[in-house]
Amino acid sequence: MRTGQTHLFNPGPARVPAQGPRLATVAQGDLMPGLVRDLRPVFGTTEAEMLFQPGTATAAWETATSNTLSPGDKVLVACHGQFSTLWGDLAAMLGLDPVVVHAPWGAAAPVDQIDRLLGADVQGEIKAVFVTHCETSTGVVSDLAAVRRALDSSFHEALLFVDGSSSIGSMPFAMDAWGVDIAVTGSRKGMMMPAGLALLAVGPRALDAAMTARMRRAYHDFNDMRAPGAVPADLLSGLRVALDRLHAEGLHAVHTRHRRLAEGLRRGVEALGLSLVAEWRTTCSDTVTAVRVPEGVDAREVLRIAEDDYNAAFGAGLGPLAGKAFRIGHLGDINEGMVLTALSLAELALMRAGARVVPGAGVGAAQAWFASGIPSRVLAAE
Amino acid sequence: MRTGQTHLFNPGPARVPAQGPRLATVAQGDLMPGLVRDLRPVFGTTEAEMLFQPGTATAAWETATSNTLSPGDKVLVACHGQFSTLWGDLAAMLGLDPVVVHAPWGAAAPVDQIDRLLGADVQGEIKAVFVTHCETSTGVVSDLAAVRRALDSSFHEALLFVDGSSSIGSMPFAMDAWGVDIAVTGSRKGMMMPAGLALLAVGPRALDAAMTARMRRAYHDFNDMRAPGAVPADLLSGLRVALDRLHAEGLHAVHTRHRRLAEGLRRGVEALGLSLVAEWRTTCSDTVTAVRVPEGVDAREVLRIAEDDYNAAFGAGLGPLAGKAFRIGHLGDINEGMVLTALSLAELALMRAGARVVPGAGVGAAQAWFASGIPSRVLAAE
Amino acid sequence: MRTGQTHLFNPGPARVPAQGPRLATVAQGDLMPGLVRDLRPVFGTTEAEMLFQPGTATAAWETATSNTLSPGDKVLVACHGQFSTLWGDLAAMLGLDPVVVHAPWGAAAPVDQIDRLLGADVQGEIKAVFVTHCETSTGVVSDLAAVRRALDSSFHEALLFVDGSSSIGSMPFAMDAWGVDIAVTGSRKGMMMPAGLALLAVGPRALDAAMTARMRRAYHDFNDMRAPGAVPADLLSGLRVALDRLHAEGLHAVHTRHRRLAEGLRRGVEALGLSLVAEWRTTCSDTVTAVRVPEGVDAREVLRIAEDDYNAAFGAGLGPLAGKAFRIGHLGDINEGMVLTALSLAELALMRAGARVVPGAGVGAAQAWFASGIPSRVLAAE
Amino acid sequence: MRTGQTHLFNPGPARVPAQGPRLATVAQGDLMPGLVRDLRPVFGTTEAEMLFQPGTATAAWETATSNTLSPGDKVLVACHGQFSTLWGDLAAMLGLDPVVVHAPWGAAAPVDQIDRLLGADVQGEIKAVFVTHCETSTGVVSDLAAVRRALDSSFHEALLFVDGSSSIGSMPFAMDAWGVDIAVTGSRKGMMMPAGLALLAVGPRALDAAMTARMRRAYHDFNDMRAPGAVPADLLSGLRVALDRLHAEGLHAVHTRHRRLAEGLRRGVEALGLSLVAEWRTTCSDTVTAVRVPEGVDAREVLRIAEDDYNAAFGAGLGPLAGKAFRIGHLGDINEGMVLTALSLAELALMRAGARVVPGAGVGAAQAWFASGIPSRVLAAE
Repeated sequence: MRTGQTHLFNPGPARVPAQGPRLATVAQGDLMPGLVRDLRPVFGTTEAEMLFQPGTATAAWETATSNTLSPGDKVLVACHGQFSTLWGDLAAMLGLDPVVVHAPWGAAAPVDQIDRLLGADVQGEIKAVFVTHCETSTGVVSDLAAVRRALDSSFHEALLFVDGSSSIGSMPFAMDAWGVDIAVTGSRKGMMMPAGLALLAVGPRALDAAMTARMRRAYHDFNDMRAPGAVPADLLSGLRVALDRLHAEGLHAVHTRHRRLAEGLRRGVEALGLSLVAEWRTTCSDTVTAVRVPEGVDAREVLRIAEDDYNAAFGAGLGPLAGKAFRIGHLGDINEGMVLTALSLAELALMRAGARVVPGAGVGAAQAWFASGIPSRVLAAE
Repeated sequence: MRTGQTHLFNPGPARVPAQGPRLATVAQGDLMPGLVRDLRPVFGTTEAEMLFQPGTATAAWETATSNTLSPGDKVLVACHGQFSTLWGDLAAMLGLDPVVVHAPWGAAAPVDQIDRLLGADVQGEIKAVFVTHCETSTGVVSDLAAVRRALDSSFHEALLFVDGSSSIGSMPFAMDAWGVDIAVTGSRKGMMMPAGLALLAVGPRALDAAMTARMRRAYHDFNDMRAPGAVPADLLSGLRVALDRLHAEGLHAVHTRHRRLAEGLRRGVEALGLSLVAEWRTTCSDTVTAVRVPEGVDAREVLRIAEDDYNAAFGAGLGPLAGKAFRIGHLGDINEGMVLTALSLAELALMRAGARVVPGAGVGAAQAWFASGIPSRVLAAE
Repeated sequence: MRTGQTHLFNPGPARVPAQGPRLATVAQGDLMPGLVRDLRPVFGTTEAEMLFQPGTATAAWETATSNTLSPGDKVLVACHGQFSTLWGDLAAMLGLDPVVVHAPWGAAAPVDQIDRLLGADVQGEIKAVFVTHCETSTGVVSDLAAVRRALDSSFHEALLFVDGSSSIGSMPFAMDAWGVDIAVTGSRKGMMMPAGLALLAVGPRALDAAMTARMRRAYHDFNDMRAPGAVPADLLSGLRVALDRLHAEGLHAVHTRHRRLAEGLRRGVEALGLSLVAEWRTTCSDTVTAVRVPEGVDAREVLRIAEDDYNAAFGAGLGPLAGKAFRIGHLGDINEGMVLTALSLAELALMRAGARVVPGAGVGAAQAWFASGIPSRVLAAE
Repeated sequence: MRTGQTHLFNPGPARVPAQGPRLATVAQGDLMPGLVRDLRPVFGTTEAEMLFQPGTATAAWETATSNTLSPGDKVLVACHGQFSTLWGDLAAMLGLDPVVVHAPWGAAAPVDQIDRLLGADVQGEIKAVFVTHCETSTGVVSDLAAVRRALDSSFHEALLFVDGSSSIGSMPFAMDAWGVDIAVTGSRKGMMMPAGLALLAVGPRALDAAMTARMRRAYHDFNDMRAPGAVPADLLSGLRVALDRLHAEGLHAVHTRHRRLAEGLRRGVEALGLSLVAEWRTTCSDTVTAVRVPEGVDAREVLRIAEDDYNAAFGAGLGPLAGKAFRIGHLGDINEGMVLTALSLAELALMRAGARVVPGAGVGAAQAWFASGIPSRVLAAE
């Protein structure tokens, strides 16, 4: 029997505020204008069309792709983790011709390779570039401004599509400034809602491309999504609550909070003598951290102990990281105490799984960092 | 400001039990076998594969279609309301060749026409027949056993696909006995969950067809849905609660309760001198009832008064019924008092909108019906 | 097994808003000033001290009494129902000398008798007058202004203590204007909270009396209640939510809503050919209505059918009304639909219990009343 | 603005399970026999009468006293902290004659002094002995078996009354074996409910004494509490949920879990170089721990930082411990992660308040303890 609070640190779902989304009561047709107005700053856009779809971020991927491209179109896909790889697979399944640029799991999207391929594509055969902003499987953030510079310096007209699943809402996202043409995310990460609603921001160039795209689609058709009543009212009502929450704290405060808390967590991990999967500190995500376990320890055992014995959920290492790493989600409605809880439970489970860590060392390093700066509650009040 | 309980009688969402679905806590990988075991009797099948997809029933429509058919395939679609028509549209959007058999809104699927067309299709060009079990826009139930007989009497091999959105869970559904090859529904009708999860039951002939189908798909791919973790744990956890609720009452009791309550509602509507949209009493749905308003009354005004003044939501008349009818949903966690509430608020809003109804007449007729039979609570206890 | 919504019309607890009181999180020492500020207008006072006590209104009765009176003091108690009688009993148990003036169950407090006894008490032996504003057992409201006039016209200095359990918050209450010295209520009626918190407003004359009162007390001591932390934070936090709710709608709108809804209910009851327990329409409560069942019908059977068969709770007839009447509570977060539900379920249960009522007659009369006036939602918006 | 989970470690309220008490729906008259049956083992009794009262444990104190004693009766009260002292005060306020035996704050009830006074009371003037099982202000547990031996060895007939507020439900309590005549507790500690319900177990000797007691009472009268409907149904319904929770885990598992978690906390506190208020490890409570802050640190500042900056609530030092100690509550629905959270936040707040503690040292010591034993989840499964 489980006793006590369930400690959720798997990076799939964000921490949902206790007074979080509720079911709508009566259909609220006039929710839409306010949702669009308040959602655009979260995506960093002033003019992109906001579309909503019942489903996961993967549904939004297919929507973005199938409304703007045509069968056989070449798309450049940066693959450096589980989710960016899945996006490439999806492109192939839909009949596109993906050109994949690989980087190691732990690296960011390889901008230099992207730059070279775009420069070489003098015929403009590449119709879109797919970049995953935050790779949830590795905790690595890619440099979208640099991808935009690569596109611009080649005078390349390919659309830029971004999966912002574990970044939008929790980390700065500047759709307009970065020239992102479509950005997608799901409800249960930075938006702090239950699963079930995908969000898309579609810029003017993507809307233009949708005029001539010839890919079959039905559930994913932009026009159908625009119909009144296309999105169940309870999902929209949940989004209303989530946006109120984000703007009450202030987007800047939300982003700063995530950055400060993530830095505490990283210092804790390093103080335990563990390595991050992310190759560089500058590309670390502020929402999810993938941690390598020491040689001789099975990360699956760490997870099993955490769940079975301590009612705590961390994320598994995926793909090549299975058994070698585990992941800590730290996005949404979190604070210092929750990061310290994550570290203390990770330490305990690591000890039990045979890792030689100094008990309390990770927590101590995070405490030292937290003690030296502005608490996240105070940030929000400013 | 709204005061008091919101009276929800729009047929989109079912009444969700107060102690309803919750967010999952820790991922529960072993939920799946129990869900499949308990969901199959709800669909009336012992062997169909059960698949789950984040999204609405429309997502499940696309999934059913795109995994089993190939571009250009002929499909026979019975259109006799808003949702059956949308299914035909979807088939066309996906590149199939829909052969539409129309029936008036208010009629059931025209089995005689289906029978004739299948008999004439000696080449077997029709690959699938699409039937909507309960047309939510008209409150009409079609005779699936008769459609199966039409297929069998022609020795026709077309697959039989059924949208069971507002029937499965609330009315008897016999997938195996009726030879249904794929049945789909969404979470927020008979399953009494919030929106966001689509359910599919896929029979062996449809699984065979999936081996050779050549339609592009990605989000809707059967195989991807089978991957562990493909469905967010909170949606599955909600389904667990819903199935426990259904089986605690007993499927037979659930069906009988819906039938008795619906009969009371219909008697009330008729006592008010109003007509049902459904042409025949024998084809009336036990989950949703579409009611024609008298000449000279605008059904939209009835809905507006109900919502603005009495915090009550009924469903709008759709398509050709806009302004001419309104709909009352009565599925899910309902009882006698809720049917009486629906009738009494409908009466009040109709009076206010100018209809000449005898105040209390509808409620009185329903009371007389309820007083003469077994209360739904007692049914459940048996 | 119960299915569907539980229809709660027992007058004990009010309807609690769905988004109602929650547990406090961290102790909130500074809640108190705001609570006092927002609670005073609910009691109709600008200067009374507001005190809070974990417990029921009965606890507050003992508190009011034991802090201001001394053993052997004469108190005049108007008894005309279950709860006013209990107050007299409590006075005797605490060692006071109650002088009881009786009126029939269904009558208001007998002001003429009170007037006469006060006039005859030339020695001023009566130290306090106890009046129950709304007798929850009969649904009768007493005229507090007239009691005050009786006191004033005799130049009598007795304190005036009022039980406002089922009136304060739902009906106009003018503590200062009526010269009430202590008014008490509990959390679960007009305040729309769960049970567990008693509220007292103590005027200046009662505070003076507390200086010299010589009754033993401990749990009920005014001073102990004033200590910081004396009231558990979760109870205060619930009160904060309740007051926000009341003031958002507006006290005048709340009162008008209760009056209009109660009038609809009374018209419905009378249209069924049933009698109210209240002797006069002018003394009917707007929060609870006691209804006599016809000869030959057992009110207990009506309640049993409502609960066992229809998942509905009405209040039992108490004392001499046991078996002869049942009670309908209609206070708190209610609206037209809920009154119609109460009537339609009462009709159904009455029919089943053998009463000869015209089905739908009560609902029809209430509908006619509601259709002719301003809906309660619109009142609140003004 | 608060962000993230509120970390509640103040010892007043216990941690309430997320799926905790709900409002009752319809009155449930037959809840009582099951409540009594399941509550008795929690108190360690097979025959004591169980009584329920809306209010706090203080209300139950007054009830215990006023039903069994008479004005002027001598009672022996062990005072060694805030709450035991308040009980002595209450006895005096009620007109009893308390004989107070003092012990330092941090010591247990002084059994030797009690023994001596009982032995000297050859006339049997002492009618009752009042002992606080767990002093919530100091985190100290007293030896009730020894008090019983003291009574028995003097052949003294005084009643033994015990306040079990922060022990019953979380720590072993053996009412019958210890010869306790009345034991009281409130709802929001070991019973894991919101505030508002007091519980009393009254043994046969106390029931006998109630036959002749001559203290005035009304709200606190045993007989009134026995009347059907005396306790609001929502409070009883919450208790039903709480008892189901306790027995599902198993009382022995609950007690062992509290002991193991408390031991981890104590080891953490000591590893930080801090002293417990409790004088001896053998008398430490497993539900609340009072911790002395180092010289030069103000405990109030620790609390302020925890609350203002980290959304965490600890308990204040009371009385002579104000500013010198703070308290950590660890009772109810807790687990290892929550104890580690409490320690890590206490460390952080202590550091910020100027205490020289080694960051992470306390967490590390607790982790080492937890890693060496059986996790509390596993205990519950056994």
